[in-house]
Amino acid sequence: MSRDHVLVKRDGDFVTITMNRPERRNALSLDHMRELTAAFEEVGASDARGVTLAANGPVFCAGHDFADVASADLARARELLDTCVRLMRTVQSVPQVVIARVHALATAAGCQLVADCDLAVAADTAGFAAPGGAGGWFCHTPMVAIARNVGRKRAMEMALTGDVVDAATAAEWGLVNRVVPAEELEGAARSLLERATRGSARSKALGKRALYAQFGRPEPDAYQYAVEVMAAASQTPEAREGIAAFLEKRQAHWPA
Amino acid sequence: MSRDHVLVKRDGDFVTITMNRPERRNALSLDHMRELTAAFEEVGASDARGVTLAANGPVFCAGHDFADVASADLARARELLDTCVRLMRTVQSVPQVVIARVHALATAAGCQLVADCDLAVAADTAGFAAPGGAGGWFCHTPMVAIARNVGRKRAMEMALTGDVVDAATAAEWGLVNRVVPAEELEGAARSLLERATRGSARSKALGKRALYAQFGRPEPDAYQYAVEVMAAASQTPEAREGIAAFLEKRQAHWPA
Amino acid sequence: MSRDHVLVKRDGDFVTITMNRPERRNALSLDHMRELTAAFEEVGASDARGVTLAANGPVFCAGHDFADVASADLARARELLDTCVRLMRTVQSVPQVVIARVHALATAAGCQLVADCDLAVAADTAGFAAPGGAGGWFCHTPMVAIARNVGRKRAMEMALTGDVVDAATAAEWGLVNRVVPAEELEGAARSLLERATRGSARSKALGKRALYAQFGRPEPDAYQYAVEVMAAASQTPEAREGIAAFLEKRQAHWPA
Repeated sequence: MSRDHVLVKRDGDFVTITMNRPERRNALSLDHMRELTAAFEEVGASDARGVTLAANGPVFCAGHDFADVASADLARARELLDTCVRLMRTVQSVPQVVIARVHALATAAGCQLVADCDLAVAADTAGFAAPGGAGGWFCHTPMVAIARNVGRKRAMEMALTGDVVDAATAAEWGLVNRVVPAEELEGAARSLLERATRGSARSKALGKRALYAQFGRPEPDAYQYAVEVMAAASQTPEAREGIAAFLEKRQAHWPA
Repeated sequence: MSRDHVLVKRDGDFVTITMNRPERRNALSLDHMRELTAAFEEVGASDARGVTLAANGPVFCAGHDFADVASADLARARELLDTCVRLMRTVQSVPQVVIARVHALATAAGCQLVADCDLAVAADTAGFAAPGGAGGWFCHTPMVAIARNVGRKRAMEMALTGDVVDAATAAEWGLVNRVVPAEELEGAARSLLERATRGSARSKALGKRALYAQFGRPEPDAYQYAVEVMAAASQTPEAREGIAAFLEKRQAHWPA
Repeated sequence: MSRDHVLVKRDGDFVTITMNRPERRNALSLDHMRELTAAFEEVGASDARGVTLAANGPVFCAGHDFADVASADLARARELLDTCVRLMRTVQSVPQVVIARVHALATAAGCQLVADCDLAVAADTAGFAAPGGAGGWFCHTPMVAIARNVGRKRAMEMALTGDVVDAATAAEWGLVNRVVPAEELEGAARSLLERATRGSARSKALGKRALYAQFGRPEPDAYQYAVEVMAAASQTPEAREGIAAFLEKRQAHWPA
């Protein structure tokens, strides 16, 4: 697939996917979402261990491209939103750890993208908003992701006011893992990604998948599921090696 | 309906509903709850854009009226609690944004009321408690609302100790959106309500409804629902106007 | 049952259950989990009002005993995990308030244990981690409990990095109720337990049970359930006494 909207760059174990339509504020046109999804799928099938989602230009991502939406009938609007949700699910279903590195404003589906990444680091120049509530098209789908990261009253405030939440507040509310000065953003994101990708990649991929499967379910249901996954995982070569290395007080060597 | 317990005052786009039984600490007797529900329903059917829930007297609201409960058999107790839940649902189902303006102590069902409003601003003289756990009648229904605003350990602490949480802690825990000095309470609540009521009222009403419908569901279920609502919403005149105004870089004019 | 791993000590209304295998870092071997569960069941059947879960030695609890796991086939692994979940459920189903008093590192199922206690107080020397994600056997079941105490991004960070979260951060994230200097730990835990055990023990036991039953369910479902429980509770002698004492402005005397 030719890539008009997205840059993909591999550096050792890590891949950086960069939204690269700064002149469109990295708006999520249908083509842009498809390219992003394809890029995540490609990385997902690779042996990379971690993915950084970044963006070029003065805005991280402005959400849906209103030029697309303006002419959309119901079927087309559903296609746009289905494509968007498919992108979010792909971010969550790739086996790699995905971290959002947010240097600037992330709004609507752009904020949703940050909320649905596994981890997020923001520069103090970043901001987060669900502006649809202050306009005519409410941020229904972005709020699904945002409300699962911040508390209810904070979700209501973001949804109803549409106002920008600064990076420090976003960190306090749990929408991002940390906020750092802009010049330290790349290092901080890299460092968190490195820490988050240690250990067996196969074990971690199963772990990530199981986390998303159990979130939001009543605790007894989640336990029932997690026991089965963890019991089965105990029989894998990576669990055996991890446990043996621990008991033998040596470095573990993960099976390929 | 004659109003013995509740004052309703409209000022432009906004309505203030004030609990006005200070001598009863605004306790939620059956009549008081019915009046409050009726007041919210009336405002809900009006063209007002926002509602402030306030209270007169030294206590914001002390919860159920124990004079009512003392003589209640099982059927009557269920009626009291059903009426209370109906009040909470009405607050959440009116199309307007509802903000609690809490100047003093809110306990039991009074704290629940704050927890179930869309937004809340507290004075530093406010306090929040679920005292039933320290007595003989546990705050079962209040904890449904409170636990959906604060984390689990904090919910357990409030429920089991019954102790008063001060306003600053309540803000930190996400039970209220902000805390301000008492003399700034009215202005802060008004300012947040103004910011929360911009844009198309019709779009926002659908947004509020959809938020409550998706909270607390697993993310895939919530997305499935939100995509349908948001796709349908894209076809409304208010979405069309919002998007057109954005693209044409002009002020939006919302259809009535 | 002879107790090799666990000390149980009653002091007035309170019982302290102490994990006492410091040389094994209080690892949760099958026998240790069974003893802990039995100790909680025994206390659960007693008239004690509160339980402190504490630990001896330099580590609070290191999670599963890898010596057990190393030789476990699938059936045995499931038995270990089922036993662990049964321990967690027992902690939550005993009628008493259970507080974790954490003086040191709590990792994996040890961190899960803290997360699944009703309340928790930590010394500033404590730390919390789900280290499986940095190894070969992901902390699937611990994350069920941990994710229900902290926000999603924080849960992902703990799960993926495996890094230790210090006590102050754990308090900020809601994993523990408070953090205090090490020398104040015992007093702070005792004080919170005292505050959490006032009132009718019977009413509180029902309250605790109902809280766990409604957590994690959509609000309308939770309300439907809570109304029935609270209506029925209104008919009990303890509710009658609590309400009468309040109305008569006298001290309540709880029925035995």
